[in-house]
Amino acid sequence: MTYRAPLSDFSRILKHVVGYDRVAETALFEEASPETVEAVLGEAAKMCEEVMAPLQRNGDLDPARLENGVVRTSRGFAEGYKAIAEGGWIASSAPPEFGGMGLPMTVTTCVNDMMSGACLALQLNPLMSQGQIEALEHHASDALKAVYLPKLVTGEWAGTMNLTEPQAGSDVGALTSKAEPLGDGSYAITGQKIFISWGDNDFTGNVCHLVLARLPDAVPGTKGISLFLVPKLIPDAAGDPGERNSLRVVSLEHKTGLHGSPTCVMSYEGARGWLVGEPNDGMRAMFTMMNNARLGVGVQGIGVADAATQHALSYAQERKQGRSETGTILGHADVRRMLAEMKADTYAARAIALTLAVAIDMSRATGDAAWTARAGVLTPIAKAFGTDTGIEVASKGVQVHGGMGYIEETGAAQFLRDVRVTAIYEGTNGIQAMDLVGRKLMDGGEAVFALIEEIESHAEVAKAHLPELAEAVWQATETLRETTEALLKRDMADRFGGAVPYLRAFARVLGADAHLRSACAEGGGAVERLARFYITRMLPEHVGLCAQARAGDLIPAEDFAA
Amino acid sequence: MTYRAPLSDFSRILKHVVGYDRVAETALFEEASPETVEAVLGEAAKMCEEVMAPLQRNGDLDPARLENGVVRTSRGFAEGYKAIAEGGWIASSAPPEFGGMGLPMTVTTCVNDMMSGACLALQLNPLMSQGQIEALEHHASDALKAVYLPKLVTGEWAGTMNLTEPQAGSDVGALTSKAEPLGDGSYAITGQKIFISWGDNDFTGNVCHLVLARLPDAVPGTKGISLFLVPKLIPDAAGDPGERNSLRVVSLEHKTGLHGSPTCVMSYEGARGWLVGEPNDGMRAMFTMMNNARLGVGVQGIGVADAATQHALSYAQERKQGRSETGTILGHADVRRMLAEMKADTYAARAIALTLAVAIDMSRATGDAAWTARAGVLTPIAKAFGTDTGIEVASKGVQVHGGMGYIEETGAAQFLRDVRVTAIYEGTNGIQAMDLVGRKLMDGGEAVFALIEEIESHAEVAKAHLPELAEAVWQATETLRETTEALLKRDMADRFGGAVPYLRAFARVLGADAHLRSACAEGGGAVERLARFYITRMLPEHVGLCAQARAGDLIPAEDFAA
Repeated sequence: MTYRAPLSDFSRILKHVVGYDRVAETALFEEASPETVEAVLGEAAKMCEEVMAPLQRNGDLDPARLENGVVRTSRGFAEGYKAIAEGGWIASSAPPEFGGMGLPMTVTTCVNDMMSGACLALQLNPLMSQGQIEALEHHASDALKAVYLPKLVTGEWAGTMNLTEPQAGSDVGALTSKAEPLGDGSYAITGQKIFISWGDNDFTGNVCHLVLARLPDAVPGTKGISLFLVPKLIPDAAGDPGERNSLRVVSLEHKTGLHGSPTCVMSYEGARGWLVGEPNDGMRAMFTMMNNARLGVGVQGIGVADAATQHALSYAQERKQGRSETGTILGHADVRRMLAEMKADTYAARAIALTLAVAIDMSRATGDAAWTARAGVLTPIAKAFGTDTGIEVASKGVQVHGGMGYIEETGAAQFLRDVRVTAIYEGTNGIQAMDLVGRKLMDGGEAVFALIEEIESHAEVAKAHLPELAEAVWQATETLRETTEALLKRDMADRFGGAVPYLRAFARVLGADAHLRSACAEGGGAVERLARFYITRMLPEHVGLCAQARAGDLIPAEDFAA
Repeated sequence: MTYRAPLSDFSRILKHVVGYDRVAETALFEEASPETVEAVLGEAAKMCEEVMAPLQRNGDLDPARLENGVVRTSRGFAEGYKAIAEGGWIASSAPPEFGGMGLPMTVTTCVNDMMSGACLALQLNPLMSQGQIEALEHHASDALKAVYLPKLVTGEWAGTMNLTEPQAGSDVGALTSKAEPLGDGSYAITGQKIFISWGDNDFTGNVCHLVLARLPDAVPGTKGISLFLVPKLIPDAAGDPGERNSLRVVSLEHKTGLHGSPTCVMSYEGARGWLVGEPNDGMRAMFTMMNNARLGVGVQGIGVADAATQHALSYAQERKQGRSETGTILGHADVRRMLAEMKADTYAARAIALTLAVAIDMSRATGDAAWTARAGVLTPIAKAFGTDTGIEVASKGVQVHGGMGYIEETGAAQFLRDVRVTAIYEGTNGIQAMDLVGRKLMDGGEAVFALIEEIESHAEVAKAHLPELAEAVWQATETLRETTEALLKRDMADRFGGAVPYLRAFARVLGADAHLRSACAEGGGAVERLARFYITRMLPEHVGLCAQARAGDLIPAEDFAA
């Protein structure tokens, strides 16, 4: 099994779809010229193909395990991590003052995509560090930053996020972990956290936990939550790992997939921690790392989708079947249908994620609130559609393999088992959709309608090149506009009842925009045929989705009583 | 975890949707009155709930294994099998002359549904015997019938199907196993077969293999294939298991799920077998068992869908979440949306399967070619939609569980892993769809249009009760009619390129018919609300599906070369 980094897709999307040039024209990112980006991505691609991809099966065949309280990682993961760190890929967007490359999020997103496709279980480790770095950068004291950021950025130390407790999942406000002041500026953290990805490892010098907990005087709910940095080894005066902190890994979860990533139950037993941000303001800091992580998790789905597509295509090209034209199962229209859906949706999801990344970069570089609002709208879509695409594509990959897809040795099922969790963690895809129709429509739809206008203006331009396809995209966008207007008039329960199909309809339209613009730019050939396939075959799904979104909340809880 | 048999759904569907009365009015099935059927299903339900359901997790936790060439089955499976056999549930439709109950396929379908929901891995064993019994009943000599059928029907012996070889999966015609006449009316069978479900066990007195192989003078392709009955132990003069035959289990596959069902690589090394049917006419006999098995496999998906829905609902009812109305996650509109989709689709798929079962029964009882043609159209739809529903519902079940869904101990993921294979085996769902738009439209669409007429006439009647819903169903059926007409004008590659969405659109319309008729019959309340949910939220999917079906085959094989 081999993995090839999708450099030509990145190049096409950056050039023709997301307008990366605008990012490179800002003062903040002036060094990240398109040529530089191309070179950087080429380096990352090499590392992903040569170092990480050969480790992908190890995570499944030789899972992480807990031995006497110590996590032992999968064969080769330590060396893989070292290569990621040495290449500077732990956090390529981190600020140069702390050792980062200061690259735009757009570039980091491409790198995360490739690392996810190459070896998802290992990539999850630096993704967690990225979130932590961002949270510390924005909310931690200078003293904390000075000690932790350089080591996190180089990958010498790793970071985790500790939100969930057994009784507090999506309902974060229900958490009960406690933080008591020790009088020296530090706090004693006590509580149990679950589902902690990469809660420990055997290849970094320290593991730094960002932990949500309550101060003694905290009010109930989300307004009484504070954020603490709790290291496994407490840094000494020189900033080197010192005394062992009072925290431990209690057990690892037995999961459906992603076995190379240790998912830990963590116990904090009066562990020393330091406040990050203001008391009782933990949710704000948490959202900093969550927004970053939501894009990151969406991209995990996209990376796996690409890898699963390559894997299935390679099988289809090799699997002989006498009667077909090509001599392989590629001669079957239905096999090509599946592979074309896989390619077309991966491209759409990738374009959406990179559109979001550009919005984040432009927001940071220009401070323009419109870019910030655009990023807000796109975050839940990129997360949910990216991960749903990962799951659907991986499942189609199994199907392309026929009976062999169900046999674990082929590796097709691992993609599906591994990626399945991405629709759940970092806020389930249902939560993402509720965020889109709730919080992200609180501006009366301003940011959404601005995006819709932009897509329609693209379609207007495209009418000169591909009139039929452009008209279809324009019409679908109008339907999305009407659906948005209808949702804005509904109460929240009705909006929430239609949230998931609305988000997916939105993604369908955004994907159509990306395919249409790519086809217009490159005219004719395979790019145009894939765009035609997407717009005539996949975009029409939006009709049913918009109908669902408008239907609202129809089944009361009591109907489930019987 | 508990499983409750869906007796009220069976009752509603038999009464209001599929018109079971017509079956009971035939001379062949006059003893199977609705009252008798209810009593029979009640007995089967008890066995499924009390004996089989407690074994479901064992298949996963204590998988079948091969020890010194002998298959050892999961804990409790031997006792479970005994209960199935003693209840007469191995093959309740088998003819009384061979010890069966002679019940309609409609009843057997309900029993298979419940057994699949209770414990899929174990249920697969009698399902294989059912196919073998049907094949022998129609094609074997009286001498073979006399020896094998009574023992298969009682479950004393089990049956398997041996079609696939490493180079011959969907392309059955490529198989190379050989059969050489031994001069005494028997044949020496030599070859390797793969993916043999329940190729051996440790709880039946014999295992009887139906094996496809080629006679020495056979032409290449499917016209040179013959069918042989090859027992593990060769019956002696008294019909008791005698000498060990030259066949063995080489290995068990390491699968994504269904670990309680041993999937065997079988080696036949000059094993003695007996011809079933005419030489070189094996495909006809194989289709007898395959048609039966396709309904059976569709129903596996439905049974698992029901069990996964019950399991997820039970979690949703228990999982506390402070801020919602109900105090549980059922207070979230999106959780109810998922559960309502799960319920509505399970009901639709079940109604389709039972519509097919009734057509099979009516075809047998009346000999009317129209019923046979109806069964032909419905077979691929029941198989593909039933199994797709199983997978989608089980995946939503995982999602309802949130993070806990990814933890194997909850059992939610097992449903998904187990049921995933049903979309692949017994003809992939792509093959089913090609059968529908190919072979099943060879009558110029006569059987399909007859079915469409019938659905529209139901909708006409329903306009008096639920005008808005009835109109939506009528319109969708018209769209299906137009799509069918369009397909009939296309060449085969284009039809095949649209086959999968066409099949699904057809299922959407059939499901809407079932929901509409149920709501009309029971007016008001939860049944009507679920019908409204299905028709306003799920039926509109047909628009996109029909557009896909009409778009045809768009991506040539060379576009995948790069």
